[in-house]
Amino acid sequence: MKKIEVLEEAAKRVYDNVKHLPGTKESAGDFGRGAGGDISRNIDIIAEKTVLDYLREISFPCVVLGEECGRVEILENYEGSVIMDAVDGSTNAVRGIPFSCCSLAFATGDKLSSVTDAVIIDLYNGDLYSASKGQGAFMNGKKITVHKEKPLYFVVGVDMSGISPDSLQRLAPIISASNHIRHFGAVALELAMFARGLVDLFVDLRGKLRITDVAAGYLLALEAGGIIVDKNTNQLDSDLSHDKKISFVAAASQEILDETIDKLRLSD
Amino acid sequence: MKKIEVLEEAAKRVYDNVKHLPGTKESAGDFGRGAGGDISRNIDIIAEKTVLDYLREISFPCVVLGEECGRVEILENYEGSVIMDAVDGSTNAVRGIPFSCCSLAFATGDKLSSVTDAVIIDLYNGDLYSASKGQGAFMNGKKITVHKEKPLYFVVGVDMSGISPDSLQRLAPIISASNHIRHFGAVALELAMFARGLVDLFVDLRGKLRITDVAAGYLLALEAGGIIVDKNTNQLDSDLSHDKKISFVAAASQEILDETIDKLRLSD
Repeated sequence: MKKIEVLEEAAKRVYDNVKHLPGTKESAGDFGRGAGGDISRNIDIIAEKTVLDYLREISFPCVVLGEECGRVEILENYEGSVIMDAVDGSTNAVRGIPFSCCSLAFATGDKLSSVTDAVIIDLYNGDLYSASKGQGAFMNGKKITVHKEKPLYFVVGVDMSGISPDSLQRLAPIISASNHIRHFGAVALELAMFARGLVDLFVDLRGKLRITDVAAGYLLALEAGGIIVDKNTNQLDSDLSHDKKISFVAAASQEILDETIDKLRLSD
Repeated sequence: MKKIEVLEEAAKRVYDNVKHLPGTKESAGDFGRGAGGDISRNIDIIAEKTVLDYLREISFPCVVLGEECGRVEILENYEGSVIMDAVDGSTNAVRGIPFSCCSLAFATGDKLSSVTDAVIIDLYNGDLYSASKGQGAFMNGKKITVHKEKPLYFVVGVDMSGISPDSLQRLAPIISASNHIRHFGAVALELAMFARGLVDLFVDLRGKLRITDVAAGYLLALEAGGIIVDKNTNQLDSDLSHDKKISFVAAASQEILDETIDKLRLSD
């Protein structure tokens, strides 16, 4: 069984087990702070358990790095890591806002650049996004690419929740210049939208994202032809560890990236 | 036939006629600037024509104020106005982002406060929101209310597309204080989410909204128990004319409103 098939099956099981939960009281419940630092909710716990149970069931030779569970060894002799945000967009899910997903990536090494397989499933409608390194990106089995033509409307995703006033002011040239700013509240699914060509630019310079939020969306966006750089305009990479905080700019083309770097003065 | 039934039937016809369009090339096409000042797209034109055709078919005694068509008299002896944004979130619809709606309101007079009936239909899934003055607010026939309990997560909608850098800085105390800022790109549907209790506060202080964007969501939010004030903290009202630009704060409770006024220094 290929790695990507394992991730797809795990994601589908999560969807089946939690799709009735968003917006219900059952989705909430407080299980204390997870490894990532956020409060774990019932929907998070059910989703993580689904993935862990499945990986144990098939004795998948991996270590899991989970948003809530932290580091869990499935087999002692492992071939790589599964980086899991079993529910990205927990707040949306608990409130009933139809925008959350399960994000799973497989990495052979200890860097973001060693991610070889990625799956994101939309917990509202079951849309399945997947990518394997060098093989392109897919949505429900159909190839997807970022939007390379000049778009009819230029849509910019910006994550600004809890941003510092200084960082917000730094984003002003992007926010004020666009009539189509968006923020849906689940970065992995927003990267999937970027990879599908629905959004042309996605910016998160808060320095708050975790590796579990980004690992799958990162490969999906790259395999769809996107460009992703860090706040110093270098190609994005990172250690795969819980305490790493990430900022990035994802652009559909070099031209868009250059303009953005210029506007945000990232190269200064 | 009640006014609300007319609006519901018109909205359902729009949904049936355009639900296959979002994300297709057919949805786009440039028909010049509409009465509201934006470029009219094919999906806008089809949706408006659907409403106008239906109102003529039943000889509904009204004047229509439309985002694209401007002022259209259906019958000479009219009893009031239908305020129409046939597609709110046209950008999302054209790009394929599943968040747009049709917004229809009926008003007996020439002020926003004279709106007596409101219907919003979600163009992605057909969810139908409706409200008549003094009768409460409904989603698919079930009563809805804003979120009155202390929420598990406090979610704030902020419209900041094309905001001036000064206005953005003014919003910083709200944006920096919340870990759950959202902006989906269709104010009418965002007001419906607010009315359903999915969002606790919605702020748009750009001074860019038109009456057609707001009329239906305004009554829906009020009938669901929300509080809506203008930028001077007075209860929101406005003339029903195309050149009016609106700013507002919608809050689920007086406590949330008071805190927001304080943070934004609206009462200074």
